[in-house]
Amino acid sequence: MKYSIIAIGDELLIGQVTDTNSGWIARHMTPRGWDVNTVQVVPDDARQIGLAIDRAFAQTDVVLMTGGLGPTKDDITKPTLCRYFGGEMVLDKAVEANVRQVMERRHLKLNEYTRLQAMVPSSCRVIQNEVGTAPLMWFEREGKVLVSMPGVPFELQGMMERAVIPQLLARFNDGEDIEFRTFVVSGIIESALAMQLDEFERNLPQGIHLAYLPEGGIIRLRLTGSSTDASALNANMERLSRELHDILGTHIIADGDKRLPEILGERLRERGLTLSTAESCTGGNVAHDITSIAGSSDYFKGAVVSYANDVKMELLGVNEQDIIEHGAVSDPVVRQMVEGVCRVIGSDCAMATSGIAGPAGGSPTKPVGNVWMAAKCGDRVISQVKQLPGDRSRVINRATLEVELLLLSLLS
Amino acid sequence: MKYSIIAIGDELLIGQVTDTNSGWIARHMTPRGWDVNTVQVVPDDARQIGLAIDRAFAQTDVVLMTGGLGPTKDDITKPTLCRYFGGEMVLDKAVEANVRQVMERRHLKLNEYTRLQAMVPSSCRVIQNEVGTAPLMWFEREGKVLVSMPGVPFELQGMMERAVIPQLLARFNDGEDIEFRTFVVSGIIESALAMQLDEFERNLPQGIHLAYLPEGGIIRLRLTGSSTDASALNANMERLSRELHDILGTHIIADGDKRLPEILGERLRERGLTLSTAESCTGGNVAHDITSIAGSSDYFKGAVVSYANDVKMELLGVNEQDIIEHGAVSDPVVRQMVEGVCRVIGSDCAMATSGIAGPAGGSPTKPVGNVWMAAKCGDRVISQVKQLPGDRSRVINRATLEVELLLLSLLS
Repeated sequence: MKYSIIAIGDELLIGQVTDTNSGWIARHMTPRGWDVNTVQVVPDDARQIGLAIDRAFAQTDVVLMTGGLGPTKDDITKPTLCRYFGGEMVLDKAVEANVRQVMERRHLKLNEYTRLQAMVPSSCRVIQNEVGTAPLMWFEREGKVLVSMPGVPFELQGMMERAVIPQLLARFNDGEDIEFRTFVVSGIIESALAMQLDEFERNLPQGIHLAYLPEGGIIRLRLTGSSTDASALNANMERLSRELHDILGTHIIADGDKRLPEILGERLRERGLTLSTAESCTGGNVAHDITSIAGSSDYFKGAVVSYANDVKMELLGVNEQDIIEHGAVSDPVVRQMVEGVCRVIGSDCAMATSGIAGPAGGSPTKPVGNVWMAAKCGDRVISQVKQLPGDRSRVINRATLEVELLLLSLLS
Repeated sequence: MKYSIIAIGDELLIGQVTDTNSGWIARHMTPRGWDVNTVQVVPDDARQIGLAIDRAFAQTDVVLMTGGLGPTKDDITKPTLCRYFGGEMVLDKAVEANVRQVMERRHLKLNEYTRLQAMVPSSCRVIQNEVGTAPLMWFEREGKVLVSMPGVPFELQGMMERAVIPQLLARFNDGEDIEFRTFVVSGIIESALAMQLDEFERNLPQGIHLAYLPEGGIIRLRLTGSSTDASALNANMERLSRELHDILGTHIIADGDKRLPEILGERLRERGLTLSTAESCTGGNVAHDITSIAGSSDYFKGAVVSYANDVKMELLGVNEQDIIEHGAVSDPVVRQMVEGVCRVIGSDCAMATSGIAGPAGGSPTKPVGNVWMAAKCGDRVISQVKQLPGDRSRVINRATLEVELLLLSLLS
């Protein structure tokens, strides 16, 4: 089943807010056999919204629309939908009561603008927003469906799961089964991987294809198959998964669409090991990444961000002479950082980073992007230096990924 | 000047990668007077790419296209562009030399797939990619321009700044001046803000408008004006800025499109104060946010992420009895955390968080989203508790913002 997404909002088009809703919708619709045809991002402009709906309906029968429903004047989605689908703007008492309730729960007063939320086109069926004030609206005409949803990610996600996805699945049903397998691959670049998989790809059965999803130093391989014969599809996917493992061996670091901190967490949990981090250039991002995983408190004990050198020395016990001789960005320093943080936090394993995130601070011998990393697990300590490309944020993110891969190699 | 963006890639449509390129492009084109008409996100599919180009050219003369240029088989942009603009695929010796150089710099070997990067449509003018292997391609036909660029953010950004933006500005020039003013507003909800600005908005001169850009607990107000009379426009914008300050007073925490850690950094730097963080539920995200700002090492000394209670006690000196009596998520604990981290890190100011990020760990009295925060500056310590909505990642991000606002109130 194909559908289109329309994301509305000047703030998306000028780049002040990134549209993460479309990705979220896709991640939750695809496993149910729904493929996005295209995403259109359009401004808070009646004509552009109308054109986008025309274009979407020309290709798919279902359109999911996000945003443009805020109470302020730059939002004009509702009247536009009213003109498109006919009818007039009417006050919906149930929506009004809901808005009042939501505002009370947040200890806020209902005002003229929030009250406007209760005006909806008479041509729609309202889906009550249980977590916010903007109502969801289900429009249907000549077999085509458009659902307008709030752009606030938290509200969108809650209401998609509770109402929109179940109602779409009930309304449309084409009997085709979809299966996905994702494999997380590291230690090989995309072009080399493609060469290794050349024959595998050429021999893929009809209805099954392979996609490469590189991100940072990791490549996700996604095998997708669709068929009306679910059991034959499943057998094929099983066989192809085994073949991929045979071809790629330890390059596959995980089955499933897992993030690296999740993979690390599973390995640590299996072995009953605890973790800490000692961070200079990553500034807490490694700890943040590790703790983005629910349940990470089972193995993650804490971190020391030693941005200043005196914190490296006083809190982590890094030798001052080594900083003077080798610099803060050096092998002896990151090795002492992992040792020190395991000692002060009381953990079995640790990761450490020290580098030049930029844009300033680089030198000919240690240019921006130069990062030393160490990982410790029990008695084993390993370290590496990498020259990472890109700006400050890219260096920080890439260093985070590289030091996590380094620790993973100790846990394999 | 209006333009369209087309972002190509199955990985964008299935939500495994978020399209941040379109936002980046917009943020760098808008100040030059270029407005995005629409963004279309389409799959690696020749027909969809062709349709998207048709739709874009129907509305604008300039199309910026990103992605779909990787060396693996799921990328089919180049042959599609070749069919669209005519000509044939030819080997470009300069691109081949560039690919070889880039690969050597990365200590990688040229293989069959990377060599394919050197094949380009004869109908385009190549812009050499100085930071990656995929060449940029400038197509022009009947006054319409399409520029195809790599989807890797780092490569796209480098080449937009070095080549694409200057060449677009040279090629098109409509003589209209654009001015932007952004104001960061806090401590007021969007609908209440809209009511306060009702009269201001109704009296805005022609060609000037106001947009609300709420994000988390902060609202950005953006005043945009365009005119062929640059000095009249500038005078108007000056006057309106003063009026906004008069109406909103201390609700405006900064002029300009600044992020909160940047505003905090400016205040700390002005006063010569240093900063540290003590984090439980935010897991290092506050430190990460602070250090995302270039130059933050001038005032940020370090952080202790005390995820486990024994780290709170041993490293930060939090009283065990208080944890037993009040729980780790409590006023006395966050107050002792800011005191402790200032002591062990040796900083003047600090922020601390302790809360239930979820999804597990909630209780009737302390549900998921319950977060205690403290801020310290010199002798003054303040604290607050917030009940934050949303999932784990939203609670972490919102707690980060709220504790930063708390510290800001001490620095005002």
